[in-house]
Amino acid sequence: MTKPYVLGVDIGGTNTVFGIVDARGQVIASDSIKTKKHAEFDDYVEELHSSVERLLRLHDAEDKIQGIGIGAPNANYYTGEIVNPPNLPWGPVIPLAEKVSEAFGGIPVAVTNDANAAALGEMTYGAARGMKDFIMITLGTGVGSGIVINGQMVYGHDGNAGELGHLVMKRNNGRMCGCGRTGCLEAYCSATGVARTAREFLEVRTEPSTLRNIDIEDITSKDVYDAAVAGDKIAKEIFEYTGRILGEAFADMVAFSSPQAIILFGGLAKSGDLLLKPLKEAFEKNVMPIFRGKTQIILSELKESDAAVLGASALGWEAKRRSESVISTDAAQ
Amino acid sequence: MTKPYVLGVDIGGTNTVFGIVDARGQVIASDSIKTKKHAEFDDYVEELHSSVERLLRLHDAEDKIQGIGIGAPNANYYTGEIVNPPNLPWGPVIPLAEKVSEAFGGIPVAVTNDANAAALGEMTYGAARGMKDFIMITLGTGVGSGIVINGQMVYGHDGNAGELGHLVMKRNNGRMCGCGRTGCLEAYCSATGVARTAREFLEVRTEPSTLRNIDIEDITSKDVYDAAVAGDKIAKEIFEYTGRILGEAFADMVAFSSPQAIILFGGLAKSGDLLLKPLKEAFEKNVMPIFRGKTQIILSELKESDAAVLGASALGWEAKRRSESVISTDAAQ
Repeated sequence: MTKPYVLGVDIGGTNTVFGIVDARGQVIASDSIKTKKHAEFDDYVEELHSSVERLLRLHDAEDKIQGIGIGAPNANYYTGEIVNPPNLPWGPVIPLAEKVSEAFGGIPVAVTNDANAAALGEMTYGAARGMKDFIMITLGTGVGSGIVINGQMVYGHDGNAGELGHLVMKRNNGRMCGCGRTGCLEAYCSATGVARTAREFLEVRTEPSTLRNIDIEDITSKDVYDAAVAGDKIAKEIFEYTGRILGEAFADMVAFSSPQAIILFGGLAKSGDLLLKPLKEAFEKNVMPIFRGKTQIILSELKESDAAVLGASALGWEAKRRSESVISTDAAQ
Repeated sequence: MTKPYVLGVDIGGTNTVFGIVDARGQVIASDSIKTKKHAEFDDYVEELHSSVERLLRLHDAEDKIQGIGIGAPNANYYTGEIVNPPNLPWGPVIPLAEKVSEAFGGIPVAVTNDANAAALGEMTYGAARGMKDFIMITLGTGVGSGIVINGQMVYGHDGNAGELGHLVMKRNNGRMCGCGRTGCLEAYCSATGVARTAREFLEVRTEPSTLRNIDIEDITSKDVYDAAVAGDKIAKEIFEYTGRILGEAFADMVAFSSPQAIILFGGLAKSGDLLLKPLKEAFEKNVMPIFRGKTQIILSELKESDAAVLGASALGWEAKRRSESVISTDAAQ
């Protein structure tokens, strides 16, 4: 038998990255297309298909793809659809799994949201190998999460579980969040949240700060990071504030599912002790005594460029298994 | 083959209730002993054993018990132990499963905490039949919870998951909680929490209330309920306040696991619309838009007197299955 591969696809607002992955989690080859080049979803799928075929030919891997896994914002594991994506064209409900499987001649396809895909990647190839209970938190433009319990991804009854970026951390006078409510974790602890904190701190305080050299509306979390590394007092306090809120949120997450680890992923997670020190302090201070000292807070072990594709590829193997179990159930009837 | 039974045991601070339960969830017979009669745990187990044997003889059910399930405060599913029980004698670590199995001649025993046992009962015999994702909230002296995801009880990596009574609802100036922290859900929405709210409201407000006829230190949640039913304005507002906080907490729980239902159990849950109306309103107002209208908030369908024993009995069947799978694994080696 030829060596089997899966295809992992990560659909982002700008790029769609895809990779051919073998059973040991090696990315054999990868490439990308522009997500928003086509106004019609069918045309997008067509380009994805032809680009993948080209990559497969180049690597002598035609007919070796056993399953396709796709991570995409708002993608639903149960329905295979993308629903109300904040940042994609193609309408409110996109039949992602169905159309892709069709284009690839019926190869089984499984989809989930990007944060869940990252968690699957971490469980299969990263820091969560061997763990049955963990939570992955992605600190990017937003705050995403993927929850694994008893070795299984938590999708909830409707496929939308794991919105931990929208735990309410400030019940009074909280910041507006993109979800339409106020006070969500994401409004404080995402990259955008850090920039908002910077604007808030600079407005209400009088101390000098190198951040004052930047137009206040243009400040990014990267600016805050650079200033903090250079020793700027307000910038350091912005990270302390961010870490404290994350630590408080993590304490509530642990009361829910008592995970072995909470794994941090995404740009902000690379801020090192600037973020991790206040986070861990606030976590240990706020977590229930019975959980104290039991949950590790660690960083992802996957390269950010590989993680999404690897996570999606893990889902590709699941799509293969799922289709086989359907076939054997059919055969048994 | 004789008809198989399991034994369900519910260890409370005052009484230990146990019942013989058949495969359809019928409680064939039940009885109870006083939990704290014996200073030594061995003596307690001895009395439990002889009382159960008597009940079995009376119902011609000797040698028909296939498994024993026990719900007890702070009981750990993985270790079989009760750890630091707030309200039991017998020391900080009680080897519950081991000792009971020994006393009953090696019958398999599984244990879990009382809230998880109630959730198992609800899933097997109550309002959660057929549900794979739900959360059970017990509103009693404290606020307990049992979480089911993908059809499985959530125990977490250490067996202590599901402490939703200790989600932090007030991050500033919150009430002291029995867990050693402040602002927990339990400090507001348990029976004791309602009584605390009554004292707080009566102290800071000046309106008349029939609750003022009771010594402020003696007010119970039952007094508040009676006053509210009779139309007392402050008493009704106490329930609105309690319901609102519960609704806010439920919104966060749904962001975690997106359950099909949240099921209410315990004394306070019987307050009807006094509690349910503000609870549901606050829930729908606070839940993320993608979850709106999807999660039912419903009442337990189990009689309170039966629920604990039925839940524990469901665990008894699991103990039986677990021991059989161990045996077949051993045999395969």
